[in-house]
Amino acid sequence: MPVNYATPAADQLFPVAGVRLGVAEAEIRKKNRRDLTLVALDAGCTVAGVFTQNRFCAAPVQLCRNHLAAGKEIRALVINTGIANAGTGEPGRQTAQASCAAVAELLGIAADQVLPFSTGVILEPLPVDRLKAGLPAARADLRADNWHAAAHAIMTTDTLAKAASRRVTVGGKTISISGISKGAGMIKPNMATMLGFVATDAGIAQPMLDKLVKEAADASFNCITVDGDTSTNDSFVMIATGQSGAAFASDSDAGWPEVKAAIVAVAVELAQAIVRDGEGATKFIEVRVQGGRDEAECKQVAYAIARSPLVKTAFFASDPNLGRILAAVGYAGIQDLDVERVRLWLGNVLVAEHGGRADTYQEAEGARVMAEAEISVRAHLARGEAEATVWTCDLSYEYVKINAEYRS
Amino acid sequence: MPVNYATPAADQLFPVAGVRLGVAEAEIRKKNRRDLTLVALDAGCTVAGVFTQNRFCAAPVQLCRNHLAAGKEIRALVINTGIANAGTGEPGRQTAQASCAAVAELLGIAADQVLPFSTGVILEPLPVDRLKAGLPAARADLRADNWHAAAHAIMTTDTLAKAASRRVTVGGKTISISGISKGAGMIKPNMATMLGFVATDAGIAQPMLDKLVKEAADASFNCITVDGDTSTNDSFVMIATGQSGAAFASDSDAGWPEVKAAIVAVAVELAQAIVRDGEGATKFIEVRVQGGRDEAECKQVAYAIARSPLVKTAFFASDPNLGRILAAVGYAGIQDLDVERVRLWLGNVLVAEHGGRADTYQEAEGARVMAEAEISVRAHLARGEAEATVWTCDLSYEYVKINAEYRS
Repeated sequence: MPVNYATPAADQLFPVAGVRLGVAEAEIRKKNRRDLTLVALDAGCTVAGVFTQNRFCAAPVQLCRNHLAAGKEIRALVINTGIANAGTGEPGRQTAQASCAAVAELLGIAADQVLPFSTGVILEPLPVDRLKAGLPAARADLRADNWHAAAHAIMTTDTLAKAASRRVTVGGKTISISGISKGAGMIKPNMATMLGFVATDAGIAQPMLDKLVKEAADASFNCITVDGDTSTNDSFVMIATGQSGAAFASDSDAGWPEVKAAIVAVAVELAQAIVRDGEGATKFIEVRVQGGRDEAECKQVAYAIARSPLVKTAFFASDPNLGRILAAVGYAGIQDLDVERVRLWLGNVLVAEHGGRADTYQEAEGARVMAEAEISVRAHLARGEAEATVWTCDLSYEYVKINAEYRS
Repeated sequence: MPVNYATPAADQLFPVAGVRLGVAEAEIRKKNRRDLTLVALDAGCTVAGVFTQNRFCAAPVQLCRNHLAAGKEIRALVINTGIANAGTGEPGRQTAQASCAAVAELLGIAADQVLPFSTGVILEPLPVDRLKAGLPAARADLRADNWHAAAHAIMTTDTLAKAASRRVTVGGKTISISGISKGAGMIKPNMATMLGFVATDAGIAQPMLDKLVKEAADASFNCITVDGDTSTNDSFVMIATGQSGAAFASDSDAGWPEVKAAIVAVAVELAQAIVRDGEGATKFIEVRVQGGRDEAECKQVAYAIARSPLVKTAFFASDPNLGRILAAVGYAGIQDLDVERVRLWLGNVLVAEHGGRADTYQEAEGARVMAEAEISVRAHLARGEAEATVWTCDLSYEYVKINAEYRS
């Protein structure tokens, strides 16, 4: 069960003028489930994306990069679950290409105006004929108020659909922002997560959107881990339709800070939802590292803690086994770290300083924090002013069960 | 249960002339178990060690480094299990120092001729009075044929004691080599593992032994991982007593290659035993990466595979979910890796090439290999001549159970 997360109701997800979504059952890998999503964009949108750094990146990821780089206006997204179309070589690129061509024909646009996305099992061929056969039903389903259905249709091992919305009014114009994401395992994004999509009806000039998508990913999807495995298909795409009438062409435009904050907030909510629904998760853990020389080393220490199976099983057991956290700080790879100066807090309880357990620490205090469903770990390195935050979940029997049985 | 490993019988572990071992019940953390080991060395031995790179290295590790650097002849080792004396700050250094002083007084040597070792729970104080009270019984137990008892007395979550012996005859002299190790979790040594000790009655000049201990660690303990967590207490120590009458002062001495090979073989056997007894292990997995530009990048890829929770749960499930292995190769961090040229084998079955599944691959073949208790994974990067091998185990429910309940 996810930790303190529930999918918003359909009417809590605001339509974004210029974006219509449709879903269908294409039987990509299993029957009787909606596994195909089509997103149609009106003319005049800007689109930007960031993608996995995994060298075995999936065929659709390669096409997304190419199509975005080509610079034509993007008019559609096609997303399937069940099969990742990763580790599929040249035939995989051909099926991804064929998917784009089929969407293009259906919508009267060019194939390189389509961005394809796949998620699911790696190394299996994508049954492109089934995908194509499902497209007309998805087109018939296209609606602006269909974010809820789309959030469900992109799930794999997710137990709940993930979606978030915000509205912000600037200069008398109301701007809507909606987004969906999926992912529960193979989560340690390096640029973006499994799949994340955020759209707004603000107009955002392409250079600003290119910058924003990276900033938002760095503040959200690039701060999470479930199991430390970086997926082959990570993709995070941002769409700005401009149909609210509010448009931004420069960082200094009035209202931009508020709009940007709302967009980043949606991305953070979607990223955290992935961790809250992490495979087998029973706890949501925020790891904050402060006092580093730069953000990179803070993140390095935070991820060492957040990735450690020993730390994660201790959280599962609600056991304040703090030595495991200290050990992770120690092996994070900061060669000149002075451990005598490191301080560690569990919630608001100071647990370690001067290279050992804090004199004031009481095990009962640690146990009280560990028993909670949301736990904050904070380490201060005392060597600078930088900080970074990472979100993760615990490691439970259920994680092993889910991943031992994934393909069965 | 360990994977294809059984502790050698006591009479299969050869005494090493010049080394006597004694064990005792000191009630460091639990009653009714032998948790204290004393090793007494005759005059004339050379001793060398490598230790954890974890910045939170334990107090005894700090003392070991100091005492070895001071250059006096090492005459004794004292090892306790139950409490790691790590993350214990200045008081921890004082208790480690007090342990050495107590041993020194008992044996009529100096405190800096003693190397202390601790393993067990981190962040708890070492009850040094109990350790001191147990020392006379350990001294009374000192015997050359006591390796079997010592292997048992250094265990923590190990399910079986780990020991190995070899004999090699060179120049008419029979040389004995015996070693013991412990460790099952928090295993991703970086210089050496939890605790490993190897002794030989060959004489080995100090500069050669200093070199050998690093080479042997690199070929053995530095090639294993259970959970990717580098311990605070990793220590690997090598002792050469010279009492066989065979002595080596140069790499070109006759017989040295044979002796060196036997010593490294003991270290490898001890390191593999740790993986075979890895927490919750049901499979033993060898990951071999070939065709890299240098050994470092091969090891980087091998560890990415060997550390992946997704790969490890697939092994537990005997599921040939090869996409997870490809994904790990892809995120290992080699930025210019050409994935189209990577080939992957499971046992002797070619499973992937040209960026996807091999045309000849049959799932039944993969399933057959995965069902075995010992599995070999081989990746060829096709960009050089270097290679590296890493050993690991699978990730099972039992791992979570053991680490959720460790302190209870």
